[in-house]
Amino acid sequence: MKAIIREVAPRDGLQNEEPIATAAKVELLDALSGTGVRRIEAVSFVSPRAIPQMADADEVWAKSWHNPDVRYSALIPNTRGAQRALAAGFREIEVVVSASDTHNRRNLNRSTEESLDDIALLIPLVHEAGATLEVIVATSFGCPFEGDVDPDRVAGIVARVRADGADRIAFGDTTGMATPRRVRDLLSVVRPDLLHFHNTRGTGLANILTALDLGVSEFDASAGGLGGCPYAPGASGNVATEEVVHMLHDMGIDTGIDLDRLIEAAALAERLIGRRLPSGVLRAGPRTRLA
Amino acid sequence: MKAIIREVAPRDGLQNEEPIATAAKVELLDALSGTGVRRIEAVSFVSPRAIPQMADADEVWAKSWHNPDVRYSALIPNTRGAQRALAAGFREIEVVVSASDTHNRRNLNRSTEESLDDIALLIPLVHEAGATLEVIVATSFGCPFEGDVDPDRVAGIVARVRADGADRIAFGDTTGMATPRRVRDLLSVVRPDLLHFHNTRGTGLANILTALDLGVSEFDASAGGLGGCPYAPGASGNVATEEVVHMLHDMGIDTGIDLDRLIEAAALAERLIGRRLPSGVLRAGPRTRLA
Repeated sequence: MKAIIREVAPRDGLQNEEPIATAAKVELLDALSGTGVRRIEAVSFVSPRAIPQMADADEVWAKSWHNPDVRYSALIPNTRGAQRALAAGFREIEVVVSASDTHNRRNLNRSTEESLDDIALLIPLVHEAGATLEVIVATSFGCPFEGDVDPDRVAGIVARVRADGADRIAFGDTTGMATPRRVRDLLSVVRPDLLHFHNTRGTGLANILTALDLGVSEFDASAGGLGGCPYAPGASGNVATEEVVHMLHDMGIDTGIDLDRLIEAAALAERLIGRRLPSGVLRAGPRTRLA
Repeated sequence: MKAIIREVAPRDGLQNEEPIATAAKVELLDALSGTGVRRIEAVSFVSPRAIPQMADADEVWAKSWHNPDVRYSALIPNTRGAQRALAAGFREIEVVVSASDTHNRRNLNRSTEESLDDIALLIPLVHEAGATLEVIVATSFGCPFEGDVDPDRVAGIVARVRADGADRIAFGDTTGMATPRRVRDLLSVVRPDLLHFHNTRGTGLANILTALDLGVSEFDASAGGLGGCPYAPGASGNVATEEVVHMLHDMGIDTGIDLDRLIEAAALAERLIGRRLPSGVLRAGPRTRLA
């Protein structure tokens, strides 16, 4: 059995940490490109005023190693971002819409419906450039403002964007509200191509185990667990890639990743960011490392 | 469906932290006694030279609230400890033996076989006092010195102690080497009454999910995740009770525990111990707590 990991530390991770130097971002991206991971979310093309952490996205991407064995993607918020990503050479583009209307308004200053209309216009633009668009449905497992999100609402969004031509769908556990029960509830109604879980409440690997059981085997993860939870100061955000890979390899599920190299990259992320990252496998090593 | 949680912060948690004052231990034990939890591992009766954290076990127990709705247990290393526990009024006694011979020698200065002989002599002594003995098989999911432990070896130990009259069996994931795959491998050969998991490598809740699927529904957990991993400095030890309860309640599994009170007790543990504990639910609150 195989699973695909998309490493998101260079984008989602760094975007939720204090800004670091361009050279440090390139160093981390290059280290991750050499781990055997098959997909990396490299940068986002967003407003430098809104998100200063990604102001140097063009430079980071231009200076980094583009490993031909890795598929790189970029996150964009709008048409302007898509144009920058396409001009930089990206052929896999991601865009976010929140299942929760309140969260979408806070995050993107428009309703979910308005964002879906924007995405409908974005898809042909991306396709004309020979690229693909992945729609990430944020707050799929719950919203920090509205609470539970009805799986039927997520399914409605998926139906709409698929009809509009979206190439791939991801479900985002934006603030760590996913649990094994919620994963089962949602995936029994509608399935994504990829799942993005947080470990904010300790359920990260339990959620992945549940998703595997339901037939989804592509996951976002962030080296070291880089990137906090924006809604709970001091809390964990993304699941740590080395914890995910450690569990998957132990189950006999291939990811193509060299766990030792990945742990080295996570240790590098920790040094570059200058704070202790929450990954247990980074701290204790794999279970096969004896005393 | 129901699950039973045994809260181990007062014993296992505090034993793996810097010593705190007797009054602080009593305060924590009393707070936990009021959470609705049905079982608490209260103290251990061990050599104060070996484990200064438990030197005041008699005083802690004498001064604390004995909630009639809670079953309290004490851990003991030998006959002398059992006599102290019985004299203090405990009717549920626990003793540890390691499945790994190397770990047993390092921990108890004798072979696994010699410890099993000791336990055979201990059982009638405990039974004569009207008490029960639980045998905790440490390193059941792996040994930090020997690596993987053969499930058949664990099964052999279980058969021996059951034949000798042990009342209950627990499997201990002493250094966080359990994974969903290892839980499945071991439990398909032999089942315990109770499982004790660590979260050293992030798999704590995934392991519990796997065990529930295999029909085991009694778990040790420590408020706040109190108690580090003795073999990996700075790493997490016990699974955090509030993370376990948060996941179980969300699945509709009853534990009898009031999660808000439990989180208050975990916050108290954090204040008393004076270091940040690793629990995500303590940090971020339950998923139902909105922004």
